[in-house]
Amino acid sequence: MEKKALTINGIPSMIIADPEASLADVLRRQLGLTGTKVGCGTAQCGACSVIMDGKVVRSCVTKMKKVEEGARITTIEGIGSPENLHPIQVAWMVHGGAQCGFCSPGFIVSAKGLLDQNVHPTREDVRDWFQKHRNACRCTGYKPLVDAVMDAARVLRGEISKEDLVYKLPADGRVWGGSHPRPSAVAKVTGTCDYGADLGLKLPPNALQLALVQAKVSHANILSIDASETEKMPGVYKVVTHKDVKGKNRITGLITFPTNKGDGWDRPILCDTKIFQFGDAIAIVCADTIENARAAADKVKVELEELPAYMSAPAAMADDAIEIHPGTPNIYFEQKIAKGEETGPLMAQAAHVVEDDFFVGRQPHLPMEPDVGFAYFDDQGRLTIHSKSIGIHLHHAMICPGLGIEPEKLRLVQNAAGGTFGYKFSPTIEALLGVACMATDRPVFLNFDYYQQITYTGKRSPFFLKLKYGANADGKIIAMESDWSVDHGPYSEFGDLLTVRGAQFIGAGYGIPNIRGIGRTVCTNHAWGSAFRSYGSPQSEFASEVLMDELAEKMGIDPLELRYKNVYRPGDTTPSGCAPDVYSLPELIDKIRPLYEEALEKAKKESTAEKKRGVGVSIGVYGCGLDGPDSSESAVELTPDGITVYSSWEDHGQGADMGCLATAHEALRPMGIQPDKIKLVMNDTAITPNSGPAGGSRSQVVTGQAIRVGCEMLVNAMKKAGGGYRTYDEMVAEKIPLKYEGKWTASACTACDENAQGNPFPAYMYGVFLAEVEVDVKTGKTQVLKMTCACDVGKIANKLVVDGQIYGGLVQGIGLALSEDFDDLKKHVSLVGCGLPYIKDAPDALSAIYVETPRENGPFGASGVGELPLTSPHASIINAIYNACGVRITRLPALPEKVLAGLKSA
Amino acid sequence: MEKKALTINGIPSMIIADPEASLADVLRRQLGLTGTKVGCGTAQCGACSVIMDGKVVRSCVTKMKKVEEGARITTIEGIGSPENLHPIQVAWMVHGGAQCGFCSPGFIVSAKGLLDQNVHPTREDVRDWFQKHRNACRCTGYKPLVDAVMDAARVLRGEISKEDLVYKLPADGRVWGGSHPRPSAVAKVTGTCDYGADLGLKLPPNALQLALVQAKVSHANILSIDASETEKMPGVYKVVTHKDVKGKNRITGLITFPTNKGDGWDRPILCDTKIFQFGDAIAIVCADTIENARAAADKVKVELEELPAYMSAPAAMADDAIEIHPGTPNIYFEQKIAKGEETGPLMAQAAHVVEDDFFVGRQPHLPMEPDVGFAYFDDQGRLTIHSKSIGIHLHHAMICPGLGIEPEKLRLVQNAAGGTFGYKFSPTIEALLGVACMATDRPVFLNFDYYQQITYTGKRSPFFLKLKYGANADGKIIAMESDWSVDHGPYSEFGDLLTVRGAQFIGAGYGIPNIRGIGRTVCTNHAWGSAFRSYGSPQSEFASEVLMDELAEKMGIDPLELRYKNVYRPGDTTPSGCAPDVYSLPELIDKIRPLYEEALEKAKKESTAEKKRGVGVSIGVYGCGLDGPDSSESAVELTPDGITVYSSWEDHGQGADMGCLATAHEALRPMGIQPDKIKLVMNDTAITPNSGPAGGSRSQVVTGQAIRVGCEMLVNAMKKAGGGYRTYDEMVAEKIPLKYEGKWTASACTACDENAQGNPFPAYMYGVFLAEVEVDVKTGKTQVLKMTCACDVGKIANKLVVDGQIYGGLVQGIGLALSEDFDDLKKHVSLVGCGLPYIKDAPDALSAIYVETPRENGPFGASGVGELPLTSPHASIINAIYNACGVRITRLPALPEKVLAGLKSA
Repeated sequence: MEKKALTINGIPSMIIADPEASLADVLRRQLGLTGTKVGCGTAQCGACSVIMDGKVVRSCVTKMKKVEEGARITTIEGIGSPENLHPIQVAWMVHGGAQCGFCSPGFIVSAKGLLDQNVHPTREDVRDWFQKHRNACRCTGYKPLVDAVMDAARVLRGEISKEDLVYKLPADGRVWGGSHPRPSAVAKVTGTCDYGADLGLKLPPNALQLALVQAKVSHANILSIDASETEKMPGVYKVVTHKDVKGKNRITGLITFPTNKGDGWDRPILCDTKIFQFGDAIAIVCADTIENARAAADKVKVELEELPAYMSAPAAMADDAIEIHPGTPNIYFEQKIAKGEETGPLMAQAAHVVEDDFFVGRQPHLPMEPDVGFAYFDDQGRLTIHSKSIGIHLHHAMICPGLGIEPEKLRLVQNAAGGTFGYKFSPTIEALLGVACMATDRPVFLNFDYYQQITYTGKRSPFFLKLKYGANADGKIIAMESDWSVDHGPYSEFGDLLTVRGAQFIGAGYGIPNIRGIGRTVCTNHAWGSAFRSYGSPQSEFASEVLMDELAEKMGIDPLELRYKNVYRPGDTTPSGCAPDVYSLPELIDKIRPLYEEALEKAKKESTAEKKRGVGVSIGVYGCGLDGPDSSESAVELTPDGITVYSSWEDHGQGADMGCLATAHEALRPMGIQPDKIKLVMNDTAITPNSGPAGGSRSQVVTGQAIRVGCEMLVNAMKKAGGGYRTYDEMVAEKIPLKYEGKWTASACTACDENAQGNPFPAYMYGVFLAEVEVDVKTGKTQVLKMTCACDVGKIANKLVVDGQIYGGLVQGIGLALSEDFDDLKKHVSLVGCGLPYIKDAPDALSAIYVETPRENGPFGASGVGELPLTSPHASIINAIYNACGVRITRLPALPEKVLAGLKSA
Repeated sequence: MEKKALTINGIPSMIIADPEASLADVLRRQLGLTGTKVGCGTAQCGACSVIMDGKVVRSCVTKMKKVEEGARITTIEGIGSPENLHPIQVAWMVHGGAQCGFCSPGFIVSAKGLLDQNVHPTREDVRDWFQKHRNACRCTGYKPLVDAVMDAARVLRGEISKEDLVYKLPADGRVWGGSHPRPSAVAKVTGTCDYGADLGLKLPPNALQLALVQAKVSHANILSIDASETEKMPGVYKVVTHKDVKGKNRITGLITFPTNKGDGWDRPILCDTKIFQFGDAIAIVCADTIENARAAADKVKVELEELPAYMSAPAAMADDAIEIHPGTPNIYFEQKIAKGEETGPLMAQAAHVVEDDFFVGRQPHLPMEPDVGFAYFDDQGRLTIHSKSIGIHLHHAMICPGLGIEPEKLRLVQNAAGGTFGYKFSPTIEALLGVACMATDRPVFLNFDYYQQITYTGKRSPFFLKLKYGANADGKIIAMESDWSVDHGPYSEFGDLLTVRGAQFIGAGYGIPNIRGIGRTVCTNHAWGSAFRSYGSPQSEFASEVLMDELAEKMGIDPLELRYKNVYRPGDTTPSGCAPDVYSLPELIDKIRPLYEEALEKAKKESTAEKKRGVGVSIGVYGCGLDGPDSSESAVELTPDGITVYSSWEDHGQGADMGCLATAHEALRPMGIQPDKIKLVMNDTAITPNSGPAGGSRSQVVTGQAIRVGCEMLVNAMKKAGGGYRTYDEMVAEKIPLKYEGKWTASACTACDENAQGNPFPAYMYGVFLAEVEVDVKTGKTQVLKMTCACDVGKIANKLVVDGQIYGGLVQGIGLALSEDFDDLKKHVSLVGCGLPYIKDAPDALSAIYVETPRENGPFGASGVGELPLTSPHASIINAIYNACGVRITRLPALPEKVLAGLKSA
């Protein structure tokens, strides 16, 4: 231990710390300064940035021995507080810089470090600074962050006042449709938002720290687990194995489709007989400190019989492959699509036929916050599990029987989540926490490191696709044939639904009258498939959008014009055979066209022999809702202080709070309430109703409607016969109920049938993507110079939230197109290894163009938004690469070596 | 566990806590909000005050289940920060409201609660508020706190600005002699000052929590200690007993006097063969949480053979008493005094003779902060012990052999201390921490609760005195005979020195030419005697000052005038036979006389049959220094940023930092340095020189001199031949040393001889106390209405510090006179039980009158100050009670029932 005198946020402090401990750990665990977040823990994300003696450093890798005696350290807590925000923090709020907010303290600290040195930065200076300091963001696409720094600099230069920057409610008092900063923004920009890791540090002192014993092979039979020595190690309370699990020790996959050949009980909480994938949890060490828990976890002896590991769908589909789950075939689900006439004859007579094979891989979610949670028995004896769950009621049902607990004795709560992008649609550590808590009767806390985040949590399921278009002479597609195999990893949950998404979104956006195809879900030993933003569409639409360019090339016509011919118009139906909710794609293409033409011209002009520029487009379509008659619940209550809205609209970082507030305020506006009088109570199964999971861009539509309904019920109850509204006291005096349950069901929807025909979604989102790229022919490296998205997501509830979703999704599309992957278990195990886009990988030129066609099924005309920007932006980039240099990439990601190989073979 | 949504300091927070946990614990241990201090833990001190939903509550007894969902809580962190102080905090600083500072956050929060409700309080409103909310302070005497609230209210009412309140350096740039707030004030008023309990919570996560197994009897032989079951309990790492102690397992008493019959090795670190007093430490449980440690400590089996317990000096002196330390007589030290002629013949011929018996009891120190500390091995392998030690080098020597560690491998550090008043002149938990750390090789943390603070730590040693004066017809005392027995408890440390203090201070202040007497140190089984402010004089001077009133009464003359006749004048010598340093007592009496006469008149006028008023005076004298040629060391270093002063001037709360700064600045002033360029490095044996312990009012004199010398050496080295001073760069360029060791020795002093004759102190402090009281004849309860102290403590280094010392000492004198005691092991075990004065027990009318006679031996003419106000204020109160109602109390405290009994027998 070393004693040091440091000045932390201006306060002289005596610190006693292990010289080998990280500054981040000392700040967070010893000093309680949890504003400094730890993301990757390996200096790749900058969430932990602090200023030390004037320099921005990543505290997660700054060992205490490198912190000099007398050092002056500034953390986010020293920059501003909720009641005294720094201009950077205000700018961050009004530019929507904090989405999940996990990176915000690090970025803001880093920006402070920049502006302390240079109060006149250019946008490129800002981008260079964040690149150099490795400040990574997965939500915003970076552009709003640069906007925020530029505005903060103006304040610091005295050109405008801080007050000028602050958001003001517009004159009409309307929140809906405006740029109100999300309610959680203040907490997020000041570091006072407690995420799971922060709350975990603030648990009662008797909380146990958990470390997992995890599989280091991908497929094996378990012969024995021996923890007898481990339990004697210092600080170890208990080593929990499958023998300690009271229930079925399985997370149920809630099989949706009766044709599923599995039973959905294939995912162990703690492995008992088999290891199904690398990283599977075998045992949990419960100890007094995380160091003791980890040291002990290393000592648990696990004897295995290794089995052949099937690391892709084709491998698992091979004839000689053994059943990964004995008794269930590795292909456990199939979904046909049959719309219109048989396609065989149509293809034969078509003027133009194109076909190709495509592969979209195992995109990792890469949230800045690794998975984290804790559990305890609450004051009513309920096992209470806090996690990043974006489906608390769903997960309740999925883990309850496995734990062996009565449903009413299980409570799930969502903590503030530092990004999920869908991975938390699946339970991750919830059941592990539950088991450990039940086995020890103590609060327990588990915080993954980033390696665990990557290797344990679910991924986007790779699709292997074959696609064929037949078009008439005019270029109108008359037939489509498709075949897709989904590598869903070893656990079946939602695998059937995902495979159905292939039927729904291959060729989406186009009025293709005749379709035949089949998809299948394949069990493998690679990472289990979980939801990921745009679930199924980035795979499906990659195929249909790149093949569309191939068709255009074959026909010799402009790819945008080919799309224009084919997009939905009245009379057309979706691949599912239903009418789209609105027909805005032609208008969106009209909006994009001039930009597209300008881009083409510019690219031609600016291309050089070394750096070739190109332009690509794609169409993106996605539905809002789970599938079929989706429904949601809310509750709205009049209180002496205002109105409380209860919902389980979970937040990935997308802005659930803002969605709730904007929707509720719009519905309550007739009675003239101020937004600060609306209190949101969210995401606790013990106190908030079942609003369904926050996925599939359903929340603003379905839960938004439930909130609208609840609010309208209250407004109606408060309405006086003679005009005006009753006060709280009047309501109480007249004994009129104060609390109303708002329920809404997408009653017009039907689930898809065995031919994938139906009306699965109450609303859709439409977009056109325009990518401008430059390919370095020497290296094969592609730089995206500009991304534009023209889209119709219905009426916009909040401009900051929607912009943020679009920009962030576009940059995830860049990652998907060019760099992101999780395949190699040695290489793809860090943010950098997985190909996360940093700020200089993203263009500063990101733009969104909106057409706001009101949706009948959305509250106040809104549709969803989150999935749209990641439906097919990567296809536009791939198409742009072809346009630039003639290399057609059909297997993502388009790594430099792949493009280079294409260039060489061309 | 219960999940609650609370708003803490304006920040919405999710809290998971045990419903039975205290809010204070949750704030401090879970949320890291260590600004809220925990003193007594039982709602008696208010250090933990927070505002909850507008009400001031004591968080230490507010269980979480009583904290309502949605509650808004404000802690000191939410009131102001170092960079944005609240007006109450500024007022606290400029009025010297923070001495030790441990109560400051609670008082400031409480004051905020008052001013939120009433921004126009009267002084009595403020006093009522603090009384009602049980805000207790042991340092300040309360008056400065009321002053601060009154000024803060003026700011809040807009009558003055916050800036008006802020301290400004005077035009001459001089710190010395002014009212500069102490350097630690900002941290203390904002709750950012980390005391031991705060640092303990901020230790590395592998730190072990310690709980003691303590004796529940006062005297016993130990038959066996069995911890075998305990070591298996949850979370227990080790149970440490005497068998684990590597060294001699004794704290050495560093026997000062060769005539001491003990060897000084009588105090065990962990009891092995015997229990010597209630609370003795038998074993230490080292566990992961304090709850586990305490639960386990209860299970250690200790088999005892109980022995007769000698709970007072007379009991231990009885013929049949066994030796408490076998081989050493219970009376183990005797000190004669023989000055001038034999007193027997003089008494026989004296015109007036008075004699009486007196008893001053076991006054408890009652600091707001209970004893606390921690230990770890530092980066150089040194066992490093942090505690409240006010003698780090002294304690180093006292515990080193007992621990069995090489001296260079032991390092002692003082934490910010929340009051000691001398009890930390003795080692308390240092050696326990060292043993536990050595046995576990882990950081260890021990935090006493208030019961342990009272029952384990040392107390003022009771004196049983017999005193006799012989005076001539004029009232000049010509002979004094004294006999005093000191109940020093079971441990000999400093017992001999304390007994010598009897010889030095019985009759001090008066030029008594002939003295004979004898004192003895008695080993008992009650609390071990440790230092306490004014060490020995409150006992000695109580006897001589009350007897002086008895003489005056016998002679029929005014007690002040009798004193005036007898106080030191040139030619007189002290009881030790040396000349006093200055002769200011006549002048001090002259200053008091008009107030005294006015008070007598007022008392006569305002006395009623039910409430009798009276006035009393006393003389107080104390020396500054350990005894004999005391010395101290400092170091002063020129750095690129300014000047660093190194010293081990430990702080009880008295203002060591301010003393250092004022003294150094005054010495460095020739070169024109700003005070904020002087950095203080204090109280760490590894980096600060041996300045000797901070006791006996020696620091400002002896260490002040050492600092002066060091600074002057540097100033001289920097002086240029042609005038002006070298810069840092010039010094480096010219290779002139940058660091200087300042040493100073009280070379004129000599220790006392076997007749108690010598010249023990380089400087003295003198005071006259004037007490005005009211006695309720129905209840016997005495209320002190006003206390005045006219004193000469030399040149005043800092007005806030000196005022604070005087006021605080006076109120401790009130406690000593009327209520404080530690005798009954069942009753005297809490602040209230021990008779701590609250604000309404202290008069708002406290005043200090200064005569600043420069001292030759003090830096810039200063003497000490801390001990003076507690030398004899209690005697003036007792004399006032007699003046009011004719009841002469000679055994303290003057509890109502004692006075009532006196009234009844009169």
